[in-house]
Amino acid sequence: MHTRSYSMHALGLHPLLRRRFSPSSFDSAHELGSDEVDLLLEAARWAPSAGNSQPWAFIVGRRGDDVHARLVPYLAGSSATWAPSASVLIANLSHRYVEDTSWDYSEFALYDLGQAVAHLTFQAQALDLFVRRFRAFDRRGVASEFDVPPHWEVTTMSAIGRPCDPSAMGGPLRLARQRRPLAAIEWRIRSASAE
Amino acid sequence: MHTRSYSMHALGLHPLLRRRFSPSSFDSAHELGSDEVDLLLEAARWAPSAGNSQPWAFIVGRRGDDVHARLVPYLAGSSATWAPSASVLIANLSHRYVEDTSWDYSEFALYDLGQAVAHLTFQAQALDLFVRRFRAFDRRGVASEFDVPPHWEVTTMSAIGRPCDPSAMGGPLRLARQRRPLAAIEWRIRSASAE
Repeated sequence: MHTRSYSMHALGLHPLLRRRFSPSSFDSAHELGSDEVDLLLEAARWAPSAGNSQPWAFIVGRRGDDVHARLVPYLAGSSATWAPSASVLIANLSHRYVEDTSWDYSEFALYDLGQAVAHLTFQAQALDLFVRRFRAFDRRGVASEFDVPPHWEVTTMSAIGRPCDPSAMGGPLRLARQRRPLAAIEWRIRSASAE
Repeated sequence: MHTRSYSMHALGLHPLLRRRFSPSSFDSAHELGSDEVDLLLEAARWAPSAGNSQPWAFIVGRRGDDVHARLVPYLAGSSATWAPSASVLIANLSHRYVEDTSWDYSEFALYDLGQAVAHLTFQAQALDLFVRRFRAFDRRGVASEFDVPPHWEVTTMSAIGRPCDPSAMGGPLRLARQRRPLAAIEWRIRSASAE
């Protein structure tokens, strides 16, 4: 069972946002077609970015293919227990520097990658897929394995697929974790005290 | 008219992604209710973040209210021409440092703020609202005006409302800008040449 915590406002959220959660286990029998994978990347592709800089790239491994087999050894002990059974593993890359310099490619490279991964996640939800993003992997190892040059960073990974428990997908509200209350994320205009 | 550029894949995107665009002008007669504003913040609130760190906060001004009037003077010359007519202006804050230190609060503060702003944008689209995010404003000025302490950053702003041209909202595909092709954002596994 998931802990459910929500406000009245949460009930008004778009279903794809309301039902979103990050599975802790994936159905190892589910496979994702290449058309669906392309659609996920297409969603990321059309995300907005500062000056249309598009500071993102993706290493995509479908379970059973060569790229997937090359990604799995770089998972950390924690993610290695659950991530390989997802239908797809994606390494999310951000364009951090101008090539051969220490100059930022864009002040918003990480922010924009976050937007792109969110867009991909939204499209995944529309396909009844769920996404768990994580950092528990060997960044340098993945970069070396796929010859990622130093001006790009392997920032996060996403595991995408069907959760093990299909009933987890059908609920009216899928807010598995606590969040700070709405009043706390709207900046306190009057008190303006530090957090 | 918008320049339309799309692939076959783009036609399969969820309508809220397919129709999303960043308006260059907003209908100054449109107003947003406080319930709708709360729903936008609720969408951001439930975004995922590294270790559930939720490194975001929002300064929200509805056109006509005091916060809006205090935000507008800090718009840059470019954004001052179009942003004040949006129904809502939001300053998007990221929790960059542990208070009174130079330690990162989270390696993913910007990435996670990007995700939260994207979630807010999806919810806006679901309410037939459109969002333009921008950097053209005086960060220090806004921080000072609202007593934002140094461990928080005023990272971006969002203008939210109805576009001036209502016909811009109805199209089947709303992809106003060019993007790199799909093949370019999937990391070239074999050639792996630097970009």
